[in-house]
Amino acid sequence: MKASSPPPYPVRITVMGGGNFGLALATVAARKGIPTTLLVRSDDIAQSINTNHTHPRYMKDIVLPARIRATSDPEKALSDATYIVHAVPVQYSRAFLDSVKEFIAPNTPVLSGSKGIETSSLGFMADILKESLGRDRPYAFLSGPSFAREICEGVATAVVVASEDLMLARDLADLLSDDNFRCFTSRDVMGVEIGGAVKNVIALAAGMCEGLGLGTNAMSGLVTRGCGEMRRLGLTFGARPSTIAGLSGVGDTFGTCFGPLSRNRKFGYRLGKGETMEEIKASSTEVAEGVDTAIALVNLIKTECKGYRLDLKFPILFGVAAILEGNLTPREGLIGIMNMPFQMENFDER
Amino acid sequence: MKASSPPPYPVRITVMGGGNFGLALATVAARKGIPTTLLVRSDDIAQSINTNHTHPRYMKDIVLPARIRATSDPEKALSDATYIVHAVPVQYSRAFLDSVKEFIAPNTPVLSGSKGIETSSLGFMADILKESLGRDRPYAFLSGPSFAREICEGVATAVVVASEDLMLARDLADLLSDDNFRCFTSRDVMGVEIGGAVKNVIALAAGMCEGLGLGTNAMSGLVTRGCGEMRRLGLTFGARPSTIAGLSGVGDTFGTCFGPLSRNRKFGYRLGKGETMEEIKASSTEVAEGVDTAIALVNLIKTECKGYRLDLKFPILFGVAAILEGNLTPREGLIGIMNMPFQMENFDER
Repeated sequence: MKASSPPPYPVRITVMGGGNFGLALATVAARKGIPTTLLVRSDDIAQSINTNHTHPRYMKDIVLPARIRATSDPEKALSDATYIVHAVPVQYSRAFLDSVKEFIAPNTPVLSGSKGIETSSLGFMADILKESLGRDRPYAFLSGPSFAREICEGVATAVVVASEDLMLARDLADLLSDDNFRCFTSRDVMGVEIGGAVKNVIALAAGMCEGLGLGTNAMSGLVTRGCGEMRRLGLTFGARPSTIAGLSGVGDTFGTCFGPLSRNRKFGYRLGKGETMEEIKASSTEVAEGVDTAIALVNLIKTECKGYRLDLKFPILFGVAAILEGNLTPREGLIGIMNMPFQMENFDER
Repeated sequence: MKASSPPPYPVRITVMGGGNFGLALATVAARKGIPTTLLVRSDDIAQSINTNHTHPRYMKDIVLPARIRATSDPEKALSDATYIVHAVPVQYSRAFLDSVKEFIAPNTPVLSGSKGIETSSLGFMADILKESLGRDRPYAFLSGPSFAREICEGVATAVVVASEDLMLARDLADLLSDDNFRCFTSRDVMGVEIGGAVKNVIALAAGMCEGLGLGTNAMSGLVTRGCGEMRRLGLTFGARPSTIAGLSGVGDTFGTCFGPLSRNRKFGYRLGKGETMEEIKASSTEVAEGVDTAIALVNLIKTECKGYRLDLKFPILFGVAAILEGNLTPREGLIGIMNMPFQMENFDER
């Protein structure tokens, strides 16, 4: 279980993306004694990290391990990496990957920490990565209840590393695990990706529920129904129900919906309180992935799921999208969701 | 879905037990226009409810519907009831039922709102009820994320009513449902009872996690693992996985572990902060059901589950019991749990 000693073979990890999660994964790798490079978007950011060991914008108060070297030069960052970690938000990933792919060696494995669905292609991270960096490269996907700040602070965290190549998942899990950061492995990439996308939409709904002043009972019911929609969508795409019930599904949803720190929940909360999309976007620096993903998910469901009245099968996913698109107020949307029968296998439809 | 109009046939509901949940279920029935009697333990309490419409000890600030009539006379309360609601804590249920059973007509259906396992018999509420009031009587079980205070305040709540007799579950769901209190139905009594028992033990663990100062990541992982143990135990007892994934399983666990009001989580929190069992028990008026249930559950697992090293299959249930019995400190117990591999079907054991 424990893997606190540095790896017995020479490893260099490069993390692409200096957002919260990129900083957290770079911290995990550096703490394990692995030479870790962080590819950031500007020299200023690189210099701040190399000199002060802090990021100038994200989690400014967190002191990063001195072993992390930051650079804005993709060639320098990527050409000799043994493993590459992708931590660029999903909507920006394709353009970013296109700009750096020439520097990535053909067989270098890529571990993605990004979650969501690209609005333009309706693809998950696995699709974007394969289309950008080649189908034959080994890929893995890290997910689970893992607020970046807590990872940096070194409090206990458990995540899943999923890959079609289980040996890669195990290698990465060994590389990154220590006493406080525990990686479990899975083959169910689709299940992990569905969980990562849907949970942010559930968090938006949970935030609205809170903003509207509904209570814990309502929010628990809403989140449970949300996990039911995650499960239903997962089954459509061949995910395993146990993945949905695990760390990357229900577990991440727990943290995102009930933790104090989630960006998506904050966004939903402000919507529930009556702020407009524009007001919220104008006053926040962080990306609430769930907003784009909510729209993309509904389009994906319409494209890929059979049957009619899909809005009745996925009332939260459709309801949140309708609210974000301005077709319903948060109150109308949430009440619409609550009034719909729970379509779970064991419950009668009433 | 909506059933806000009073029932078309004459109904009288009697709720046994004036604790928080008894008050909440009596409020639900009275709001539907049903003549509702509350059987309480003393004349003083009855008088306070009949005169001031408040309970002198529980949720003192909540004004109860004037339609609720309270009495401490079981004969008066029970003999002409069409439905009886049982809301006496599980450990006191058998003695209580023995004291009132002569007043309960042979076929009157009983809906139980109590959750947990009797320490002496290792029986669930269904066992206690059948042994006390007869095996042929129709029984139903209400569960879900349902803090009593929120029910009384009339905010949206969704629960499950489970019964082997689905018609009874439907009748009760129709009787009790209104715009803000929605009852869904299920046949999976065992699944609902397992969820109701295990969630309180998970809530104790979640509280300890908080008391020890661990973060949201750790707590989300812990609660996810707890739901995994609930699922595993459920499968052993023939419960349906979808019940565990539903309102009465994962849903109730969400509310109990993350809501602000849970007694079990408060108890665990104080343990995590370093208070002793005796100190906590001496200074709290409310019953933390999870404490007795945790001990009973481990004994039940030892009796009913096959295989060896069951503590590795149910690390939270065994860990919490060991902490409550004084064999481990909360810190040792929680760290022991976190260090154990997640034994979920889709995760490799590491």
